[in-house]
Amino acid sequence: MHSERFITGQKMLQQVDGQGGDGVVKSLQDIAPDFARYLIEFPFGDIYSRPGMNLRDREIATVAALTALGNAAPQLKVHLAAALNVGLTQEEIVEVIMQMAVYAGFPAALNGLFAAKEVFAANPKE
Amino acid sequence: MHSERFITGQKMLQQVDGQGGDGVVKSLQDIAPDFARYLIEFPFGDIYSRPGMNLRDREIATVAALTALGNAAPQLKVHLAAALNVGLTQEEIVEVIMQMAVYAGFPAALNGLFAAKEVFAANPKE
Amino acid sequence: MHSERFITGQKMLQQVDGQGGDGVVKSLQDIAPDFARYLIEFPFGDIYSRPGMNLRDREIATVAALTALGNAAPQLKVHLAAALNVGLTQEEIVEVIMQMAVYAGFPAALNGLFAAKEVFAANPKE
Amino acid sequence: MHSERFITGQKMLQQVDGQGGDGVVKSLQDIAPDFARYLIEFPFGDIYSRPGMNLRDREIATVAALTALGNAAPQLKVHLAAALNVGLTQEEIVEVIMQMAVYAGFPAALNGLFAAKEVFAANPKE
Amino acid sequence: MHSERFITGQKMLQQVDGQGGDGVVKSLQDIAPDFARYLIEFPFGDIYSRPGMNLRDREIATVAALTALGNAAPQLKVHLAAALNVGLTQEEIVEVIMQMAVYAGFPAALNGLFAAKEVFAANPKE
Amino acid sequence: MHSERFITGQKMLQQVDGQGGDGVVKSLQDIAPDFARYLIEFPFGDIYSRPGMNLRDREIATVAALTALGNAAPQLKVHLAAALNVGLTQEEIVEVIMQMAVYAGFPAALNGLFAAKEVFAANPKE
Repeated sequence: MHSERFITGQKMLQQVDGQGGDGVVKSLQDIAPDFARYLIEFPFGDIYSRPGMNLRDREIATVAALTALGNAAPQLKVHLAAALNVGLTQEEIVEVIMQMAVYAGFPAALNGLFAAKEVFAANPKE
Repeated sequence: MHSERFITGQKMLQQVDGQGGDGVVKSLQDIAPDFARYLIEFPFGDIYSRPGMNLRDREIATVAALTALGNAAPQLKVHLAAALNVGLTQEEIVEVIMQMAVYAGFPAALNGLFAAKEVFAANPKE
Repeated sequence: MHSERFITGQKMLQQVDGQGGDGVVKSLQDIAPDFARYLIEFPFGDIYSRPGMNLRDREIATVAALTALGNAAPQLKVHLAAALNVGLTQEEIVEVIMQMAVYAGFPAALNGLFAAKEVFAANPKE
Repeated sequence: MHSERFITGQKMLQQVDGQGGDGVVKSLQDIAPDFARYLIEFPFGDIYSRPGMNLRDREIATVAALTALGNAAPQLKVHLAAALNVGLTQEEIVEVIMQMAVYAGFPAALNGLFAAKEVFAANPKE
Repeated sequence: MHSERFITGQKMLQQVDGQGGDGVVKSLQDIAPDFARYLIEFPFGDIYSRPGMNLRDREIATVAALTALGNAAPQLKVHLAAALNVGLTQEEIVEVIMQMAVYAGFPAALNGLFAAKEVFAANPKE
Repeated sequence: MHSERFITGQKMLQQVDGQGGDGVVKSLQDIAPDFARYLIEFPFGDIYSRPGMNLRDREIATVAALTALGNAAPQLKVHLAAALNVGLTQEEIVEVIMQMAVYAGFPAALNGLFAAKEVFAANPKE
């Protein structure tokens, strides 16, 4: 039986990525199923579900951090799609990424923009 | 004579930090005066002044990135004060920093919270 | 009332650092009390308490990672003391840190050794 | 003629990876043959061969560090195979990687788990 | 109409990479055209064009930094080709990269050498 | 008796920092004397002593890398002094550091400039 945090996390992740994290949960099933559970419970059940900040603001923070760190391309792409999903426009996402040139250098921002280009192509504006 | 970008940047930095960056400009005067100028012109004249995103959203991104990178404590403190200055509440700033535990680990978030504690103490709520 | 994970985490943290994390919990009380709770629950209640690896091995991993990252000096010191507390010798800890020169460079290893020197001085061999 | 450190390093690397580092030495032959020699001599001849810590503990440290740094995927995979080779179980390796979520964030741990999945598939349990 | 900084930057970039950055500018055209402009103006119009240091020395610094950071492979390759273009020999570039083992660890240096091998193969000595 | 590499390294370090690394060797004497030896032997005996690049160029690379990494302030200061010692001018060092804003962000460059300011004050131009 799932914990309350897991259920909250799954609902939250559904709102964030539109899929409840099904892909990543499945990909961890054979190697680290508990980690799939933690991933739902702590980031989404505990943090994203907190009432103090809305999902749009949270995705600004996440896209900024993952662009700046520059060593987590798959997760950046997930959150670029999530950012669109929770209501940021392509233009706003580009603003966040460009700003990272100031804090983490031009290569980090460039690689963020190329990731965004790929994600935007797969998620065309309606 | 200052460039248009410098004048725009200085106005923008005045809005962001309430001081137009006077401290950092002075501290660079003897060693790298051109860098003080670049610092006004590119980050603030070019980037923060862009119409596509407001200053509150920009400071969410900056606080997130500097907390996650974890190697720029002085600049994080400047932007924690700036975040308050452009309208983020202490509670919202704490949300952004806590979320960084997910993307950069608990130590990065803890050090961000301790920096915030210091900045909030120097900028009491009215 | 505390969750089961919190109670497990506190016991585990007591075993790890000999103090149940009292210091860090108190220091977060006024700014982010929920984060103090998460810090007990996820790292210690969920991860360190897992039966698949003992605390000595876990502290080898943590000291290695924090030395290599090089941007979390306070947390490295906490875990250097914890490493002694769970049974690693000073000599073994020095081996772990020296090895980080290979993976993160000599400055990271040097700064780790200087942190260890400080922690060992405060925790003399009996 | 090879130095004593080189000979020690090659034996040690043989114990660590089961191949004495033949692959990487060959791949460096045309561009930086001296670096291939340093790689045998310092990490393996000087560090891994030290009596103060066994290879199992050393691989815990290395897997932890490379997972946390998150920017050296090829070397992480080499050491995931080495970790199996020196006696860590798949379950123990997964514990080390999951723990890195605490110190370097969930994306670093996730990318470490996906690397492990790949390495474990190529090194099936007997 | 282009700013003076843009024109200076484009000339400088032409000297650095032999192509005036045409590739990257085009690749940004649809997603962030302003960022293409900033990339010409600040790094090349403002920084590389400064008289205080020649392009050979500047490329030593850039290759060193990108090798050490280890999370910007595409930009490292651009600057490895640029380093050859402004007069560094393959041997000198290899020296810079090998030295990074000291400051950022052997994996960073190894990945730098493998990038160099690729770039040198595409830019044969005459 | 010292190895040939140690003797070469010590001479090289004497040329680089004007002191043969006496300070760091002493500071490691009680905690990790072997590491002091490795520090002389590998970085200085093996790498800096290679004929393929002069010390001035090597210090450009080191100052660039340590500024960009941003998590090794003590070692950056040692190499800022070394850079002066092997013939780089204050102006050239400032050029290298400013350029790092492009590759690692403005905070990294700013913190590098503040470190330089401190080192230059302790090493006045004659």
